[in-house]
Amino acid sequence: MSGAETITSLQNPHVKRLVRLRNRREREAHGVILIEGARELARAVQGSVPPHTLYCCPELYSPEARSLAATLPGDRLELSRAAFEKVSGRENPDGLLGVADLPAPRLPEPGNDAVLVVLHGLEKPGNVGAILRSADAAGAQGVLVLGRGADPYGPNVIRSSQGSVFTMPVAVLDEGTALEWLSTRGFTTVACTPDAPRTYWDAPLTGRVALLLGTEHAGLPESWRHTDHSVSIPMHEGSGADSLNVATAAALVLFECARQRRVQERGART
Amino acid sequence: MSGAETITSLQNPHVKRLVRLRNRREREAHGVILIEGARELARAVQGSVPPHTLYCCPELYSPEARSLAATLPGDRLELSRAAFEKVSGRENPDGLLGVADLPAPRLPEPGNDAVLVVLHGLEKPGNVGAILRSADAAGAQGVLVLGRGADPYGPNVIRSSQGSVFTMPVAVLDEGTALEWLSTRGFTTVACTPDAPRTYWDAPLTGRVALLLGTEHAGLPESWRHTDHSVSIPMHEGSGADSLNVATAAALVLFECARQRRVQERGART
Repeated sequence: MSGAETITSLQNPHVKRLVRLRNRREREAHGVILIEGARELARAVQGSVPPHTLYCCPELYSPEARSLAATLPGDRLELSRAAFEKVSGRENPDGLLGVADLPAPRLPEPGNDAVLVVLHGLEKPGNVGAILRSADAAGAQGVLVLGRGADPYGPNVIRSSQGSVFTMPVAVLDEGTALEWLSTRGFTTVACTPDAPRTYWDAPLTGRVALLLGTEHAGLPESWRHTDHSVSIPMHEGSGADSLNVATAAALVLFECARQRRVQERGART
Repeated sequence: MSGAETITSLQNPHVKRLVRLRNRREREAHGVILIEGARELARAVQGSVPPHTLYCCPELYSPEARSLAATLPGDRLELSRAAFEKVSGRENPDGLLGVADLPAPRLPEPGNDAVLVVLHGLEKPGNVGAILRSADAAGAQGVLVLGRGADPYGPNVIRSSQGSVFTMPVAVLDEGTALEWLSTRGFTTVACTPDAPRTYWDAPLTGRVALLLGTEHAGLPESWRHTDHSVSIPMHEGSGADSLNVATAAALVLFECARQRRVQERGART
């Protein structure tokens, strides 16, 4: 820790700036993002998104935050508990909040069996974050974000992704660029939509596959339904449930991609 | 609609009682539950959990609420917009809120390939609700709730289950009763736990299967790990994600049960 003074005033310019940066437009105008929490900061550093400024409140440190704080890069400023609670977006802050430059769009160098997720206008940060976390866990190679939905680098997405947004290639693109990029690289496009007659178990999901997911309410736009395949998650006959949450559906298809790859590999070995 | 007067005072005893009933202890003390929203009320009626009292605010009706309102049972009381917003637990209420008796525990008459979900102390209503919704969609025959976790009939569980809590058999039980019930009926118990060496793809999940899921933080207690099988969701090698959300993990195992049953049925037919 530096010997600098602790910021205690809620009127301090740093405090006021951090509060303003909770707003998406402010973050975009300044080209920065907020990264709160030890786990998220650790994964941001791991994903080459280091904070340039780190706001700390040792009084609030969790054990994880305390041990991580010493290793994190960035200029440091210490905040009083009241000041930190003012700038935190959490109910139980752990005393670490970083400001980093907005990451440049990252597209993967796709392998021959790369799975990509393409999100079209998803609005709920919790769903976008959960999909990023599942995509990472299932071994997807990247996530393309189209349309004006949730900010993939918004605080709630970062949190619900548990930092996977930093360690996976993520790119915000327009539709045309995305379609061309996928097409040039020979990706099979698979629309995940509740009205598809074919189940996700029955579609071939090996090779280069791009899984397209639409908004929670409207699903995919018409222009995105002319894909190589459309798949649905079959609702059990007699079930009253008419659909699944989009993040749940995404996890099911992502892990089906993983399962089919495993079956294929085992078949190739025997 | 009755010709009775509209309740406008926020001090009205009905309004005060509904606000108190947002508290779990109050609901338990009175043996009632709150059911808000047209979709949830429709599914409650479908699941034989009719509201005995229905609070309505026509000014706030969604189209779905307006058409449903005429068909719902229960004594009716009309609330002003301000009064309804006071008693609602939602940001955008649709003008319908019912009070029903707490449903009696319901255990299924399990079929030979019944899947049951056993939740041990899960605390987050959103997770419990999401699991109920996925269980319903995947064709599970019921959910047993053990330990003092989230109230399965709490407003947030009802909402995130989209009403599946009413249409599926749900029983709150103590551990001993649950274990005996499952054992007497020849259920294979399957602990879902991130440290299991066996993947969920590799465990036999046909026949009568009880899927055990533990809390978000501590997982299953030691006493519940001596099950017939333990399964995990394999994290992709090199992924930074160390686990999945418990509701996501539950959906994956539930639909794997469905997939294996389908494979078995098709095998039997050929």
